[in-house]
This record gives sequence, structure tokens and C-alpha cells, in this order.
Amino acid sequence: MSLTISHRCQSIAPSLTLKIDANAKEMKARGLDVVSFGAGEPDFPTPAHIREAAKEAIDMGLTRYTPAAGTKELRKAICEKLRVENDMTYSYGDIIVSNGAKHSLFTLMQAILDPGDEVLIPTPCWISYPEMVRMAGGVPVYVPSTEENNFIPTNRDIASRVTRRTKAIIITSPSNPNGSVWSREQLEFVAELAITHPFYVISDEIYEKLIYDGQKHLSIANLGEEIKAQTFIVNGVSKSYAMTGWRIGYVAGPRNVIKAMTNYQSHASSNANSIAQYAALKAISGDQSCVNEMVAEFERRRNAMCERINSIEGVSCKKPQGAFYIMLNIKELLGRSYNGRVLEGSMDFAELLLAEKQVALVPGVAFEAEGYCRLSYASSMENIMKGLDRIEEFIQGLE
Amino acid sequence: MSLTISHRCQSIAPSLTLKIDANAKEMKARGLDVVSFGAGEPDFPTPAHIREAAKEAIDMGLTRYTPAAGTKELRKAICEKLRVENDMTYSYGDIIVSNGAKHSLFTLMQAILDPGDEVLIPTPCWISYPEMVRMAGGVPVYVPSTEENNFIPTNRDIASRVTRRTKAIIITSPSNPNGSVWSREQLEFVAELAITHPFYVISDEIYEKLIYDGQKHLSIANLGEEIKAQTFIVNGVSKSYAMTGWRIGYVAGPRNVIKAMTNYQSHASSNANSIAQYAALKAISGDQSCVNEMVAEFERRRNAMCERINSIEGVSCKKPQGAFYIMLNIKELLGRSYNGRVLEGSMDFAELLLAEKQVALVPGVAFEAEGYCRLSYASSMENIMKGLDRIEEFIQGLE
Repeated sequence: MSLTISHRCQSIAPSLTLKIDANAKEMKARGLDVVSFGAGEPDFPTPAHIREAAKEAIDMGLTRYTPAAGTKELRKAICEKLRVENDMTYSYGDIIVSNGAKHSLFTLMQAILDPGDEVLIPTPCWISYPEMVRMAGGVPVYVPSTEENNFIPTNRDIASRVTRRTKAIIITSPSNPNGSVWSREQLEFVAELAITHPFYVISDEIYEKLIYDGQKHLSIANLGEEIKAQTFIVNGVSKSYAMTGWRIGYVAGPRNVIKAMTNYQSHASSNANSIAQYAALKAISGDQSCVNEMVAEFERRRNAMCERINSIEGVSCKKPQGAFYIMLNIKELLGRSYNGRVLEGSMDFAELLLAEKQVALVPGVAFEAEGYCRLSYASSMENIMKGLDRIEEFIQGLE
Repeated sequence: MSLTISHRCQSIAPSLTLKIDANAKEMKARGLDVVSFGAGEPDFPTPAHIREAAKEAIDMGLTRYTPAAGTKELRKAICEKLRVENDMTYSYGDIIVSNGAKHSLFTLMQAILDPGDEVLIPTPCWISYPEMVRMAGGVPVYVPSTEENNFIPTNRDIASRVTRRTKAIIITSPSNPNGSVWSREQLEFVAELAITHPFYVISDEIYEKLIYDGQKHLSIANLGEEIKAQTFIVNGVSKSYAMTGWRIGYVAGPRNVIKAMTNYQSHASSNANSIAQYAALKAISGDQSCVNEMVAEFERRRNAMCERINSIEGVSCKKPQGAFYIMLNIKELLGRSYNGRVLEGSMDFAELLLAEKQVALVPGVAFEAEGYCRLSYASSMENIMKGLDRIEEFIQGLE
């Protein structure tokens, strides 16, 4: 035997989004005037009433182990949220709380996937889905989409990827990285396919509340008891309540799997931070006006940003319906060059832009979306406009 | 394909210690007068200066994503702790911070074990080690010990379990569940074996500071650069600073593995709670007098508890040197009965004691230590004495 790293770890790439975010933060800390469109987190502070709830929990000594699946109070509050906001009935035994929604998804994959099991992943997709599937021995099966179809795959494309080994599909609505929202008809098609086969549906609803133009979020689990019984709703407080650092996510779903996840989690990490659980309790069951304020501001920025981008020659974007990301189409720029370096893809674009204009964004290649870059508008309007001015300058400098 | 749970999860048992603890807490919440010896957490509150640091972090808005491996400040403070307290040199790139030391160990197993790799686990052992090894596809290889040898396996027993597939050994000193502290000679033997083979050493030092009779903790990594280069020091703030609910653990070790762990963690859960990281920073680099006070109180309880146990006919214990657990030898009671129910093992003893006398403890079978039960003295002296009185009553009622 030698001192080696496991095969599973040798093939994992670090999360590119976290890395770019960390790089941009470090450049800023060094005093550089970086404009970052890389953030996957709201730029707002955690609302005051939530911060106060955390401080109260600390003062009350709620600093001990909780049940591995989370406190009963928090799990009950999540059920109540799902009942009131989403019109769905769960009881607290159907819920597990983890160290962020990413951790929820990871543990879910561990609980349902055996080696060789396939998971359908519509692309462009969030960077960690394929890695998590592979970390559980599964096989990510990409289902591509086009900008013309709002980055949602066609029914035909989804159906054609289903095989004997399909164990689950991941639906992310609103979506990271493209902000798309799936329609009722699109969800109905997936539900029918999943029931017939059958396979699980993993419904990542972390951006649920960040939805614009007066639209209302619809979960695939809303489509009937049958599909609800094989759907996992994944959500958390990070994006809706500006609580990324607190790390509280949860899954609601079939109880036998939730129980398997709880057993797994009880040996892999135990409970999520107890204080954050009390903060999340306040976030979920307290006053929701903070959410409305954030959503209104995000919508204002989205509108301004789309307008500005589409005024720049050589790039374009569609107006996304949710989340806080825009997919910048850079296809027209590929093949052109800056100071002699040819832009062969989104990675070149991202690297050159950071080096030349101190603007950070995430290359589409990270999301299986070559030809695009992801821009977050979780940043002040002033920063957004400064960053877009620099992008325009950069493009004007292309040969 | 059907809607099934993964094979890896089908075989995981929930953590019995967490379950017993949760049961006892719930019985108490229902108003029952339960005396619990089950706790794996200090009964002290988190010290005030640490709580204040957390509240300051909340007020300062330190509620965002941190690097996946933890803030640079915290990792540097951990290096400084290792330098000053343990006389070992690490730099912050050799450190990863996770959601508790349990999570650190889990991620470490994922990073070093391929299917079939063997990990030597001295028994009695902490309940989650074998599960974590199996969760990574590895094979736990138990190395038994006896009470006569202070629950530390003989050199001969350790050496005889080494095979071609041995990838690591876990050393827990001071130990959970038996409070044993490994001597320099015992560690030297393991170090030599590990270097010759070679295999990794996982040194779980979470109970480092809870050590009595004026002894000083010695890490196997202290024995020289060669063994340090293949040792992972696992530690955290839960036990030393009464911070179990905060969930901050860390690993210091060979950088290539730490990097692999960081990549894994960046997709599996991201950073540990940001506020808890600032609290841990204060715990590690702040005033240490809170630790001395806790240790003095634990030592007082240990002494009183051992004396009282050894005054009860039919049970006995050795005085442990560290941690906050005592192994109660119940071998003489096996075969006797209570209200017609025969005590066949530690599980019967634990169940009957809880039902008949409302005393919770953990059966040794959970730790691969049949014939014993684990009693925690992370409980007030009054409670300890009340619980031991009830245990004596129970034993007097045996036929």
C-alpha cells in the first residue's frame, strides 16, 4: 500500500465558482479595484431580526448538539412554510436539515445512487451537480438546451436521455446559472415521465423566492400526490434571506430516503450549526418583508443590466425570470483577440477580462455552457454599471 | 430502475450515541426525571468571550461564504496553536476546517480510501469510525484490547492486523469511549510500523485538553518529521471549549490530501458556518483559563465517580486518564435478571436501566465493547451521584 489519494478524489475539480469568488475577494482585500460579477450570494446583509434571533440563541445557550436531522422546531417550521407558501403537506419526519442546500444535495445523492446510476442534468447547470453525482458513484447525463428555448431542454431531448439506469432528474427552477423558470407544462411532462419510468425528481428550489415580473413559483411536487411521493424538494435560507455563510439547507421528501439521509448524516457530520438553525427558524417563520425588498431591488438591477448589455455591440442576453444571474452571450466575440491573445472560449474571456479590466465573472464552460459567461447581479447598481462599462471598453479593445 | 435507497445507505445504522442522547433529551422535555450519562458534550455553557466574538461577527456582517477550507485567519490561528501548544510546524495550506471534527474525519476517509482499503481501529472505539470507513468503501479492521491493558491494544495485536491493504490506523488519545491516553512508547511503536509499511496515521485529538493527573498530551506527529508527514491531526473546538453545537473541526496534515479534501468539501458542503469560524478563532487564540476551569471540574467528578462506582457491588471501573467517559464493567451482572428479564448484554442493561430507573447510558456494544457501558461525567456532580444511586438500587434489585 502506498500513501495515495482515493480515486474518487483524484478526479474532483475544485468548485470553480467558489474559487473565482475567493480570488476576487482576495484581490479586493489586496486593495485592487475589482468589480465582481462572480458572486453566488446576495450582497445584502442578513436581515436584522434574523441576526437578533441568532444572538438570542447564543445567549440562551442553544449551543449544543441538536438531533442530526435538525431541531424539531425548525423542521416543523419548514413543514408550515411548505403548507402555507407551497400548498404541500409534509410532517417533520419528512424533513432533514443540513449544512447548506449543497450539503443537502450531496447527502441525497449518497442516499439514492449506486455505482452506474444515471442522473439527468439539464444544462447549463450548476457546477456541483455533476461532481456530486460522480462522488456518489453515479453518472451525470447532460440534457442540453438552447438560449432560444430559454435554456430549458425540450421534452424530446429529455425523454431521449432516459435509460434503464436513470435514477433521477434534477430540476432547478429558477435556475442557476441562467435564471430560467420552468413552466407548468414543462414540469408536467417531466412528472409524467418520472412516474412512468419510475425515477426520482430532485427539485432544487433554492432560488424559489427570487422570481420576477409577478410570476409565482411552482414546484413539480405541486402537480399531484403521485409525483410528490417521488420528489425531493431541496431548499434553504442562503439566497432568499442573504444567509449564505450560515449554511442551512433542507430536503423534504419520501420518508424512507430522509431517514437514510439522516443515518448517513449522523455519522458524516451530525447536525448543522445549532445557532444557524435558530436563525433559520426566524427567517422562515418571521416577517417576510425583507424578502420582498430584496426581490424588488434584484428585479430593478436585472432590468437595468439587461438593457445595458444589449446596448453593447458583440454581446447580448435574454432577460431571465428568476435567481440573480444573467447569461452573457459572447459567441460573436470568439475568434477575436486582445493584445494578441485569441479568445477561444469563455475561459479566455473571463481570464483576460480579470487581468485587463479587473472584472470577475464565471466562464460558461463551468456550467456546460460554452459561448456564455455568467454574470451575477448580487452587487450594487453602481458596481454593475461600472463593471459593464469596463466590459464594453474591453470589447472595444478587441481586434 | 426503481425508487430505491443506495446500498451504501441501507447498511448504515443511525449513530446510537446521538440517538440515546436525543431520547434522553426528549424524555426530559416531557417532564420525566431522567439522569443522563449519555452525553458526549460538556455540560458547561460556551465561555462568554467566545459567545461575544460570535455576536460581534454577526454584527460585522461576517455572514457570507468563506473559502471552502475555512477563513485564512482561522487556519493561521490553528497553525499558531499547533506551534505553541504542540510544538509542530504547519502552514495554513496544510489545514482544512469542516463542520465539526466528525465531518473532518468523514471527508478525510473519502479522500484517502478506495474500495477494499483497510483501516485499523483499536477497540473499544468511537461509534462512527467503522461507519465512516465503510461509507468510503473501506474495511474497518478492529484491533481489540483489554481493560487490564487500559483499553490500548498490545503492539503484537496491532502488528498482526497489518496487511497489504492497510491504508491507515486511527489513534484516539485521549480516547472515547474509554478515556485512555497512549504512552510515548505505544505511539513510537505505531509510528515505526506506519513508516515501514507505509500507511497513514489518523490521530484524533479532539479530547486533547481533557487530560488529568497533570499529564501532558502527546501527539504521534510529535515523534519526528517522518511520521508527521503521514499523520493527520484531527481536532476541533467542541469538547475543549463546550462548543458542540457550533460544529467546527479541522485537520492538519499532508498538503496534497488536504487539497483533495478541500476540493471534495467545496462540492459536498462548502465552508463551515462563518460565524462559528470566528467563534472558534476566539476560542483557539483567546484566553485559555476557561479550559483549565473545566478540566479541574471534570477531574473532580471523575475521581468522585470512580470511587462511588467501585463501592457498588457487582460493577467496577478503572480510573481513566482523559476525556469525560468511564467504562463501567458489568460483566459480573450478566446472566442475572430484573423482573424476570435476563441481562444478556450491555444493551439489556441500558434498556432496563432507562425503563426502570430513568438512567441513560450507552451500552458498550455500540463501541465494540460488550460487557461494559459508557458513562459520561459531562453532568453535574449532583446528577452523577443521583444516577449512581439509582444504578446501585437497580443492581440491588437484580435476581
